[in-house]
Amino acid sequence: MSADTTMELLQASLGKSIIVKLRGGAKIRGILDGYDPHLNIVLSDAEELKGNETTRLGLIVIRGDNVILISPPIEYKPGEKE
Amino acid sequence: MSADTTMELLQASLGKSIIVKLRGGAKIRGILDGYDPHLNIVLSDAEELKGNETTRLGLIVIRGDNVILISPPIEYKPGEKE
Amino acid sequence: MSADTTMELLQASLGKSIIVKLRGGAKIRGILDGYDPHLNIVLSDAEELKGNETTRLGLIVIRGDNVILISPPIEYKPGEKE
Amino acid sequence: MSADTTMELLQASLGKSIIVKLRGGAKIRGILDGYDPHLNIVLSDAEELKGNETTRLGLIVIRGDNVILISPPIEYKPGEKE
Amino acid sequence: MSADTTMELLQASLGKSIIVKLRGGAKIRGILDGYDPHLNIVLSDAEELKGNETTRLGLIVIRGDNVILISPPIEYKPGEKE
Amino acid sequence: MSADTTMELLQASLGKSIIVKLRGGAKIRGILDGYDPHLNIVLSDAEELKGNETTRLGLIVIRGDNVILISPPIEYKPGEKE
Amino acid sequence: MSADTTMELLQASLGKSIIVKLRGGAKIRGILDGYDPHLNIVLSDAEELKGNETTRLGLIVIRGDNVILISPPIEYKPGEKE
Repeated sequence: MSADTTMELLQASLGKSIIVKLRGGAKIRGILDGYDPHLNIVLSDAEELKGNETTRLGLIVIRGDNVILISPPIEYKPGEKE
Repeated sequence: MSADTTMELLQASLGKSIIVKLRGGAKIRGILDGYDPHLNIVLSDAEELKGNETTRLGLIVIRGDNVILISPPIEYKPGEKE
Repeated sequence: MSADTTMELLQASLGKSIIVKLRGGAKIRGILDGYDPHLNIVLSDAEELKGNETTRLGLIVIRGDNVILISPPIEYKPGEKE
Repeated sequence: MSADTTMELLQASLGKSIIVKLRGGAKIRGILDGYDPHLNIVLSDAEELKGNETTRLGLIVIRGDNVILISPPIEYKPGEKE
Repeated sequence: MSADTTMELLQASLGKSIIVKLRGGAKIRGILDGYDPHLNIVLSDAEELKGNETTRLGLIVIRGDNVILISPPIEYKPGEKE
Repeated sequence: MSADTTMELLQASLGKSIIVKLRGGAKIRGILDGYDPHLNIVLSDAEELKGNETTRLGLIVIRGDNVILISPPIEYKPGEKE
Repeated sequence: MSADTTMELLQASLGKSIIVKLRGGAKIRGILDGYDPHLNIVLSDAEELKGNETTRLGLIVIRGDNVILISPPIEYKPGEKE
């Protein structure tokens, strides 16, 4: 159960809205279109969130090693989907 | 006994509340739902702790290379569980 | 679908204008001429964007580990092009 | 004798009090419960040392790439224990 | 076409003047004498450019992981030289 | 002769006093008890040098990726000891 | 010709005076006694250069990942020595 949970969670989040926090403080929200084991992330309809402002980014690729954390949309329960 | 202790300790902490300290100073508490050998961490019911304030984060994936240290909930004794 | 999406998206963007954000804040726009799995990026007609100013860079190679994010030109739909 | 000395020294320190200095300046003392070749470190009864203050951390996992140096408890003599 | 473009572009630039931007802001111009897949770069007749000043460096080896971007001399067209 | 010189030099310095400079500026002197190919270093009787002050550290393990440079005690001549 | 140029240039510089610039700004001059593919560098008669001052370092090992650039002594022509 343990070793694949990150990938399972991302798999379960495909097509849903997630938030990604990057090194340096940027916070980006978008629809998860893809990912890979390096945590490279493809988001569509992405926007950067700064306080109450949002800046539209559209479709983006985020390089994995800038990612600090990812908030998937739902309370995924490991095991339930396997 | 030595080489696997980190993984054993995380295995023994699955489903329990842990605290993760990240580079840059963030401190996050949540239920450990998963991990992998890179120390990528999946937490549910996560919240960021800043002094006396907490910010709800919900379900998150933390990329391992941002992790400084992890506090499991219990005084795990290596060897006892093997 | 998931693991190759970053590379597919870059493949679909060859010959088109993209924006690349680098560590340290630089933002570069150019025509994507090539890329590799490390996210090394070749851009032609590149220019650096700073507020309203642009500085012409011409043809450049960007080393992948400086890349934070890449904005392709179009709303690529994973799956449609496969 | 040379290539394994780090691991031998950590092996000889299992169950004993060590001090670990981390990037960013933190200094942590605890009982060495485990380690691995990446210098991931498991400490029990850990406490952070800041000047004359100590903050109790309990059981912790320290990710190896934050470690600057480790002070084992004893004057280990390489060769003696082999 | 995609995966080798960086190397092809450097190959096509051998013996020509290029500009290399380094982390920390340094900008170096010189004749490309060699490179390798880590983007280690050998330049002859190199000089550092700072505003209007240039400092002669002569023959240098630049370690690849300091490189942010490289400007080759010409508008290389991928595919044309293959 | 070239590829192994670092390791040969460390081998020739076992049991002798060396100085190690670390990222962040720390300077540590001690007897070299061991090393490995990552430049993890074991020192006994180590002390940190700050201007004219020394702080006793005793036996320590230094994680290799914090090392900037190492000063061995003697003018080792490559080739002589092989 | 291209892939090995860095190593050839260092090979051709053995026994000669080179200058090494390190991250953080240090500039070190010494006789190149050895190197390896990670750009770990062994210098004898090394001295740190700061403006007009020099600090004697003697024999040193520089860990490769601190190296920004290396200035060999001569105008090495790739191909001539092969």
